[in-house]
Amino acid sequence: MPDVDLLLHSATQLCVAPPDHGGPQRGEALGDLGLIEDGALALKDGRVLAAGTTADLRARFSAARELDCAGKVLCPGFVDPHTHLIWMGDRAVEFERRIAGATYMEIMAAGGGIMSTVRATRGASVEALVAEARPRLDRMLAHGATTVEVKTGYGLETRAELQQLEAIVALDRSHPVTLVPTFLGAHAIPAEYQGRADAYVDLVVQEMLPAVAEKARELHLPTLPFCDVFCEEGAFDLAQSRRILEAARALGFPLKIHVDEFKSLGGTSLAVELGALSADHLVTTPPEELALLGKAQTVAVALPCTPFGLGHHEYTPARALLAEGAALALASDCNPGTAWNESMPFVMALACRTLRLTPGQVLVAATLNAAFALGMGDRVGSLAPGYAADVLVLDVPDYRHLGYRFGANPVATVLKAGRIVVDAGGVYGAA
Amino acid sequence: MPDVDLLLHSATQLCVAPPDHGGPQRGEALGDLGLIEDGALALKDGRVLAAGTTADLRARFSAARELDCAGKVLCPGFVDPHTHLIWMGDRAVEFERRIAGATYMEIMAAGGGIMSTVRATRGASVEALVAEARPRLDRMLAHGATTVEVKTGYGLETRAELQQLEAIVALDRSHPVTLVPTFLGAHAIPAEYQGRADAYVDLVVQEMLPAVAEKARELHLPTLPFCDVFCEEGAFDLAQSRRILEAARALGFPLKIHVDEFKSLGGTSLAVELGALSADHLVTTPPEELALLGKAQTVAVALPCTPFGLGHHEYTPARALLAEGAALALASDCNPGTAWNESMPFVMALACRTLRLTPGQVLVAATLNAAFALGMGDRVGSLAPGYAADVLVLDVPDYRHLGYRFGANPVATVLKAGRIVVDAGGVYGAA
Repeated sequence: MPDVDLLLHSATQLCVAPPDHGGPQRGEALGDLGLIEDGALALKDGRVLAAGTTADLRARFSAARELDCAGKVLCPGFVDPHTHLIWMGDRAVEFERRIAGATYMEIMAAGGGIMSTVRATRGASVEALVAEARPRLDRMLAHGATTVEVKTGYGLETRAELQQLEAIVALDRSHPVTLVPTFLGAHAIPAEYQGRADAYVDLVVQEMLPAVAEKARELHLPTLPFCDVFCEEGAFDLAQSRRILEAARALGFPLKIHVDEFKSLGGTSLAVELGALSADHLVTTPPEELALLGKAQTVAVALPCTPFGLGHHEYTPARALLAEGAALALASDCNPGTAWNESMPFVMALACRTLRLTPGQVLVAATLNAAFALGMGDRVGSLAPGYAADVLVLDVPDYRHLGYRFGANPVATVLKAGRIVVDAGGVYGAA
Repeated sequence: MPDVDLLLHSATQLCVAPPDHGGPQRGEALGDLGLIEDGALALKDGRVLAAGTTADLRARFSAARELDCAGKVLCPGFVDPHTHLIWMGDRAVEFERRIAGATYMEIMAAGGGIMSTVRATRGASVEALVAEARPRLDRMLAHGATTVEVKTGYGLETRAELQQLEAIVALDRSHPVTLVPTFLGAHAIPAEYQGRADAYVDLVVQEMLPAVAEKARELHLPTLPFCDVFCEEGAFDLAQSRRILEAARALGFPLKIHVDEFKSLGGTSLAVELGALSADHLVTTPPEELALLGKAQTVAVALPCTPFGLGHHEYTPARALLAEGAALALASDCNPGTAWNESMPFVMALACRTLRLTPGQVLVAATLNAAFALGMGDRVGSLAPGYAADVLVLDVPDYRHLGYRFGANPVATVLKAGRIVVDAGGVYGAA
């Protein structure tokens, strides 16, 4: 009887992305790939049993099946720790208006902006939400994402928020990608609460949070979803954000928070104080709050597609975060308003240029560290022994091509829990 | 006997991109898609016989074969009028060094920069050049490019330049994409001519140009290739550029020119004066030279992937060019140093954000106007009757998704001269 289910062998490079003393790779230490040349992986029962050279693993194991990875690179499946994948409709016409010079207020007046997505999403059934999101998730998987966080937040009313949660769970249970749900009832103040933000916060705290916790039990989720808040001028101020997150924490929700995307309100300090697993965006964060992230467990999640999508020039000060010792991760922020992008390789290529991160740094930020932003860094995001066998075969001669090249898809084959779920037959990027 | 070979029908939108009085779409008129809803195309003998509504074309023609394009968008195949597709090796390590802060001089001292590509390319056979470039061209085609200009310029010695020209012709003759060759012996001053630029110009003028003309006849090319010069500080100054281009023109070469990528030397005026078909880059062009392009036949070719690839913030002032009345086109500049990108859809998404062009404008700039930059605007780049049946089926509900979304490949099916050459089975962007 063979020792292992599958032996991937002869890869030009195997990128293990090992955890650092059980944690994420912090600060200037980011980018340790644990690189093995002529690399091999032994997979058993959906997990990595061993990572080493081809000669080493061939000597140690017999395999039921082998996959020759000659000329290719192996790395962990990408973990995308911040998306808004569940939505209806699109905002292509709004995009065109924005390019042509329409202001935010003109777009809102024409029925655009986030509320247009909310209107479309509120009216949809769970089945429709799943059907609309599935091809997007297919494309994410084809581009190498094997674990994807997904937020609610286009319902902004209890019933519709619960439906989005149900859609996330239904999609998770019917698709190879692992979806990690987040409740983001505090994504925006809905039209019917304009000028009454505190009353909407009451609704989130008093009605939505308990209802989400109840729904999570009903759906047999192993843990509560994350609770997230958009702490931003025009959305939720610091006191409102604190009120929601403290109420969520009291109910046992793990926390995330959108901070400093356009204007800094002190949300980063709040994230660290409350022990949020991640603080996301961090574009306008002042130096003293960047320093807080250097010492905190809270992972700093940069979303470079958002300024790119908006045509802005200001990006997360990633090098400053690393200088402070922060644990930095990358995410797509896939959403219909600012960044409809389903490719983590593009996020990484963009981060090299706009965040000044090396290819090795973006690879760890999009795998191991992204898993830590989801509290899953002990089981996904690395190819160290014991981790999930979520593995990518990249049709590139060197891992540096991940940042160096852009526009096409470098992912040839995707394994999820040891099973091949995408196989392009070696034609890199071909549709 | 059926009237037509293939009827594409029921497309949500058909984008014809019609020529404007037989010419490119100039200035603020750029972006006329000739949009037809519930659109259909009748193809015969590799050309468009008719474009109209499904009802109209069904009433007029019987078809040997039909292709249902329901829920999808039809547009012309993309024309990429500026690439450096033929090269050996890569510069991934140089990219990593640059991100980490190495200066241009440090990279050169470490053996990097364009001369590292020249060393690798000079040593390769024609067969090796073709084999190395073919998968890149496959990916370009999968992303919708059906006509691609390709430059020599990594030889910088007569024999190696001729080999690159042979490789372009061999690839053209063995691949569905139409390749349009350009001689760019004046791409850089080779190491052995450092400090003796004029002597290298002598070589280009006295030896290379006649040899290229002779090779073109030997290869039975229907016309001479383009002759191009990199007019830039550190490459060829204005007088040297003039000397090469005037000599080329006297031999009958049509002209192109790289101008104002980093520093303006007056190359745009030269392009207009000499009647070059295109002036490419145009990042630092002064207002008075932008105005010249408003009245000239010379097409302005923007290459936004180059500043993007370098992490720069300055892009071609496209809106100013349109205000002057210029004919604007887009190209990938695909090359191993600054912009290894094989996706014209990405060029278009980038141009929307960095050049402030609408989706309709980028679509015409990447099809009809790009064809005019190659002198082929009367036969490719549009779906008007008589044009080549180079057609894309896009898996998007609206053409605006071309600029709105980024990172994945929207091209589902590609037809070249009426024949299906790429078919992803409807799975948008999946590898």
